[in-house]
Amino acid sequence: MVKVGIIGGTGYTGSELLRLLVRHPRVTVAAITSRAEAGHSVASLFPSLRGRCDLVFSDPEGEGVFADCDVVMSATPNGIAMTHAPRLLARGLRLIDIAADFRIRDVALWEQWYGMKHACPELVAEAVYGLPEQNREAIAKARLVANPGCYPTAVQLGFLPLVENGLAEPSSLMASAVSGTSGAGRAAHVPMLLSEASESVRAYAVGGHRHQPEIAQGLSRAAGRPVEFVFVPHVVPMIRGIHATLYARLTDPSVDLQALYEARYRDEPFVDVLPAGGHPDTRTVRGTNLCRIAIHRPKGTDKVVILSTIDNLTKGASGQAVQNLNLMCGFDETEGLCDIALFP
Amino acid sequence: MVKVGIIGGTGYTGSELLRLLVRHPRVTVAAITSRAEAGHSVASLFPSLRGRCDLVFSDPEGEGVFADCDVVMSATPNGIAMTHAPRLLARGLRLIDIAADFRIRDVALWEQWYGMKHACPELVAEAVYGLPEQNREAIAKARLVANPGCYPTAVQLGFLPLVENGLAEPSSLMASAVSGTSGAGRAAHVPMLLSEASESVRAYAVGGHRHQPEIAQGLSRAAGRPVEFVFVPHVVPMIRGIHATLYARLTDPSVDLQALYEARYRDEPFVDVLPAGGHPDTRTVRGTNLCRIAIHRPKGTDKVVILSTIDNLTKGASGQAVQNLNLMCGFDETEGLCDIALFP
Amino acid sequence: MVKVGIIGGTGYTGSELLRLLVRHPRVTVAAITSRAEAGHSVASLFPSLRGRCDLVFSDPEGEGVFADCDVVMSATPNGIAMTHAPRLLARGLRLIDIAADFRIRDVALWEQWYGMKHACPELVAEAVYGLPEQNREAIAKARLVANPGCYPTAVQLGFLPLVENGLAEPSSLMASAVSGTSGAGRAAHVPMLLSEASESVRAYAVGGHRHQPEIAQGLSRAAGRPVEFVFVPHVVPMIRGIHATLYARLTDPSVDLQALYEARYRDEPFVDVLPAGGHPDTRTVRGTNLCRIAIHRPKGTDKVVILSTIDNLTKGASGQAVQNLNLMCGFDETEGLCDIALFP
Amino acid sequence: MVKVGIIGGTGYTGSELLRLLVRHPRVTVAAITSRAEAGHSVASLFPSLRGRCDLVFSDPEGEGVFADCDVVMSATPNGIAMTHAPRLLARGLRLIDIAADFRIRDVALWEQWYGMKHACPELVAEAVYGLPEQNREAIAKARLVANPGCYPTAVQLGFLPLVENGLAEPSSLMASAVSGTSGAGRAAHVPMLLSEASESVRAYAVGGHRHQPEIAQGLSRAAGRPVEFVFVPHVVPMIRGIHATLYARLTDPSVDLQALYEARYRDEPFVDVLPAGGHPDTRTVRGTNLCRIAIHRPKGTDKVVILSTIDNLTKGASGQAVQNLNLMCGFDETEGLCDIALFP
Repeated sequence: MVKVGIIGGTGYTGSELLRLLVRHPRVTVAAITSRAEAGHSVASLFPSLRGRCDLVFSDPEGEGVFADCDVVMSATPNGIAMTHAPRLLARGLRLIDIAADFRIRDVALWEQWYGMKHACPELVAEAVYGLPEQNREAIAKARLVANPGCYPTAVQLGFLPLVENGLAEPSSLMASAVSGTSGAGRAAHVPMLLSEASESVRAYAVGGHRHQPEIAQGLSRAAGRPVEFVFVPHVVPMIRGIHATLYARLTDPSVDLQALYEARYRDEPFVDVLPAGGHPDTRTVRGTNLCRIAIHRPKGTDKVVILSTIDNLTKGASGQAVQNLNLMCGFDETEGLCDIALFP
Repeated sequence: MVKVGIIGGTGYTGSELLRLLVRHPRVTVAAITSRAEAGHSVASLFPSLRGRCDLVFSDPEGEGVFADCDVVMSATPNGIAMTHAPRLLARGLRLIDIAADFRIRDVALWEQWYGMKHACPELVAEAVYGLPEQNREAIAKARLVANPGCYPTAVQLGFLPLVENGLAEPSSLMASAVSGTSGAGRAAHVPMLLSEASESVRAYAVGGHRHQPEIAQGLSRAAGRPVEFVFVPHVVPMIRGIHATLYARLTDPSVDLQALYEARYRDEPFVDVLPAGGHPDTRTVRGTNLCRIAIHRPKGTDKVVILSTIDNLTKGASGQAVQNLNLMCGFDETEGLCDIALFP
Repeated sequence: MVKVGIIGGTGYTGSELLRLLVRHPRVTVAAITSRAEAGHSVASLFPSLRGRCDLVFSDPEGEGVFADCDVVMSATPNGIAMTHAPRLLARGLRLIDIAADFRIRDVALWEQWYGMKHACPELVAEAVYGLPEQNREAIAKARLVANPGCYPTAVQLGFLPLVENGLAEPSSLMASAVSGTSGAGRAAHVPMLLSEASESVRAYAVGGHRHQPEIAQGLSRAAGRPVEFVFVPHVVPMIRGIHATLYARLTDPSVDLQALYEARYRDEPFVDVLPAGGHPDTRTVRGTNLCRIAIHRPKGTDKVVILSTIDNLTKGASGQAVQNLNLMCGFDETEGLCDIALFP
Repeated sequence: MVKVGIIGGTGYTGSELLRLLVRHPRVTVAAITSRAEAGHSVASLFPSLRGRCDLVFSDPEGEGVFADCDVVMSATPNGIAMTHAPRLLARGLRLIDIAADFRIRDVALWEQWYGMKHACPELVAEAVYGLPEQNREAIAKARLVANPGCYPTAVQLGFLPLVENGLAEPSSLMASAVSGTSGAGRAAHVPMLLSEASESVRAYAVGGHRHQPEIAQGLSRAAGRPVEFVFVPHVVPMIRGIHATLYARLTDPSVDLQALYEARYRDEPFVDVLPAGGHPDTRTVRGTNLCRIAIHRPKGTDKVVILSTIDNLTKGASGQAVQNLNLMCGFDETEGLCDIALFP
């Protein structure tokens, strides 16, 4: 059994991580920290874990809180993991940060978007971007994994086969994505009240969303050249799920994209390319680590529309973190990640 | 008082039309027909109208059912109004069709998309497309008004200032739009059950939606040349509302689009351009005849993103039909259309 | 035109009050106060009022803020109106408190349930409980009206005909009621996030809810003797609406309750007794000032089940306050309250 | 591995059964029938099972369709399982009916409520009512199990400790329960459209619901004498979940009910009694086989309020059927039933 420590597990990525790890056959959660909840039982905060989890939150500053652990997973807001990383790595622990501290390789760019000074810029270059479909081997060996953001996971998995093969005009990449409200986290925030967010849709951060540079970095890397990427996120009245609708102009409209995507993802356990003409529902991936993708070619145009869906808290956060953990520990990549979405 | 007859008022556009007309200070609903509900009271079908509407559904084939009427409004499914139109116009009545029978000027194209033979192709050329912001004067004089579709209303109002001024590259127009479930009508249909449509998002008809040719026709007309238009509709878990996110590449990125849009819509009672940087929520237009629009310019690109929101049943259907009725009757255009959206 | 001042209109009862008063044909809103929003426009806080309301929030401590007003309506949290009441009444203004400060006649009981000292206990006896179906004449003459709570409105209107006629055993009255989330107000509160409150139902405050003593007081008064009342409120995933399911054991099971209820409410403009066997939906009263009621007699028992539905923000708060305002000003009781619920 | 056949798995109880059995470590689904879907793959009907289930629907009339099976589970509408039962039992198969055909021991009463003639009244007496918390040993040996209804599961588990100990006055039992829309099944039915059922609550079948006699039978049996039971079900805008609020007058108000309930359910793997003062949310049991219960004593009364929550499709249908299957096969009762509810 691998011993895992969790930093800051009181938010939605924390509760999702616990839901997955509590039943993981090869993992023991050895410690979980929270400054605010120290001394309280995990099950009192998350009643869905009553009877399934005996953990008590520890003080993150406590003596030897992760002394027994092999791997630490950070489920904190942005800007916390980087304050722990140097010490943890120095003690020989490995770290998966579910937040954004190590996702952007250009530290100045990161500081600009996240509005803070990076606490350990020297570790950024070492961090492996934890998208297994792109970086599987590097992840397996990594000391420090930067787990991708939710939108970046859906958008990059949708675009990868296209940009890896130079099939998208670099200035034509756009994404219109919608997310459930859990993407905003568990903070008490008026616009996320049911009374405000239900029965309504709105775009947000059209002037600039932090996931834009993360996606642009990933697509540029995959394309081998800089790409331009326009991103419009929206919030819709549901709890979990991201549906990303991707647009690009094709450099070669004659390529069989359906075959290309199926070949690219044939051996991926968590990417499911629908048959031609399909429309994935977010509910079919809810609570699972799957990304479901469909490819459409609007008639009479040189454009492609790709539909990519994930659960923002699972493949978009904690599920992917467990997938990375499995890779890092040499487990089967699907271990503990075999849930089937509730239907209905 | 103008006397209005309603054909087929048992669906959602019918109930919305009744909600508006029952309180309209210058209109009397003289008759409402339904084959299935003939003889039953309107209030028994729509309990929200109990105490507010004494009408009984009439048989559409009944003798002189609309004999007293000045204007007939058709709230039926597609393909019904065209079977009534010649007879009604011949009797000197004016007709507003809320469905699609007279929206597409190319009859062959209409027949291809709607899968039926047109019943009165000779009337199509006469029909005025009922988008007041584009055709106000023609509507006022029309005998036959083709009320626009819901997506076409949101998309065209969002794009008009751009394409009227040649500011969008003609092959760059795209829209990603989401709609509440009421857009699918009141038919018993498994995918629209709450158990299926709640807590999920999916795109649909990406291979071809009937509103695509309607929008392409309208934008081409406004542009004075053919435009290419890619359209991706989605259904989201709410009852009412459309949020259309529009994309185009600008021919002249230096134009002040905020000023352009404000000027274009300054005198429009039902189009509200938000201050720069805004994000309209669909809930702020729910139950109203408003279209709220915001303009964004993604940094470092030559693209524009326009956000356009309406209530699909009001400005996107029955409210706009009442606006057209007001124009046709010489009333103040806002008569009976002054509701304020519920908040929350 | 009557000039109305509003204290503290930044919450949901405030926005609902503005929605109603802005269109009221005989009312002008002369001033609205908010400590936090002083100097900001009302429409910037409530985008649904853009173009319909030019008011700017005033400082509640400002000089002569309600100098011009005839009536002041308080839409603040509990405990605020009582700090303004003595001064306002002394200046000859009349006051309608939408919160709970003047609802409970037993000041000690009030202080116990609301956890604070009453600021003007001497005014409590003068305050008229603003349930027009019970107190119409007293309201018309009142200086100070205590607008009923949301649950108390639904429950009392459902029970009144029964208890007024001694038909319910006094120890048998129970109510199981569900409310939408807007009942919890606009405070940022984690359990009311869409991510928490959607797709779930829970009871709350079963150990004691503040509306229990208010209802018990009202039913005891109507019965002319003390009654025992068990109350279980629940929160369900919707924005607006209360559905109260009421139970009592009948003292005389032979009475025709349907006829009794219809007679009791025949002349009430805002109480609609459904035909026998009916089941009111909360959506048919959403955004309206209506209370819809149905009466059921479980077979083979001496019990009655009454279903009573309102919109918690309209008949359950601000709509009823406007109804009271109309009575106090000698207007038609339905003035400004003629909306029809959106369907769907 | 036990081989299970499923009759009629195209509805929500069928999809839930598949979700559970596909991952069950000791079960193989050998066949699944559907007249309408014969020849089609299960995954094409239920996309959430893509990649997890290779079954194809068989014709229920097909030769030897369940020849290989040990147990057959029927997930059909009411009235179907009884037409298969005699033949299946004669062939030595065991049968679990998730519908209502064998729940009511009084065949005449069943025929009255279900509006049809019973096809095999001679088997009704043999059928074991599949509530493990009441009938564990009989279930283990049964040939024919009548799986309880959803409301009956929540209501009976909530009342059992009380009525088994004679603590409730027999004429005082009442339940007000709310259900998500999945309880209405997958039939295309206008009132269950999201456009109709969202943002609304209503009671239904107050004049008589089929679960009333099932519950009255169970409570009378547990009490050892006839009890009177008043039942009011409601539908609320969510997919899954039942929250039952139970009321009774106590014969002995001095009993420590919290201790009584904790003792009664101490060894039950799927009944969780919350600490005193708790309020269970339906979301904490969603997708699980748990029933969470809390006990409240309204102050100053001799009444008790019990809150009981389940997932209507899991503990209220297919999960409980799997629990019964485990008992019948001698497996650990929790096998395949260890999911943790998604949060949020």
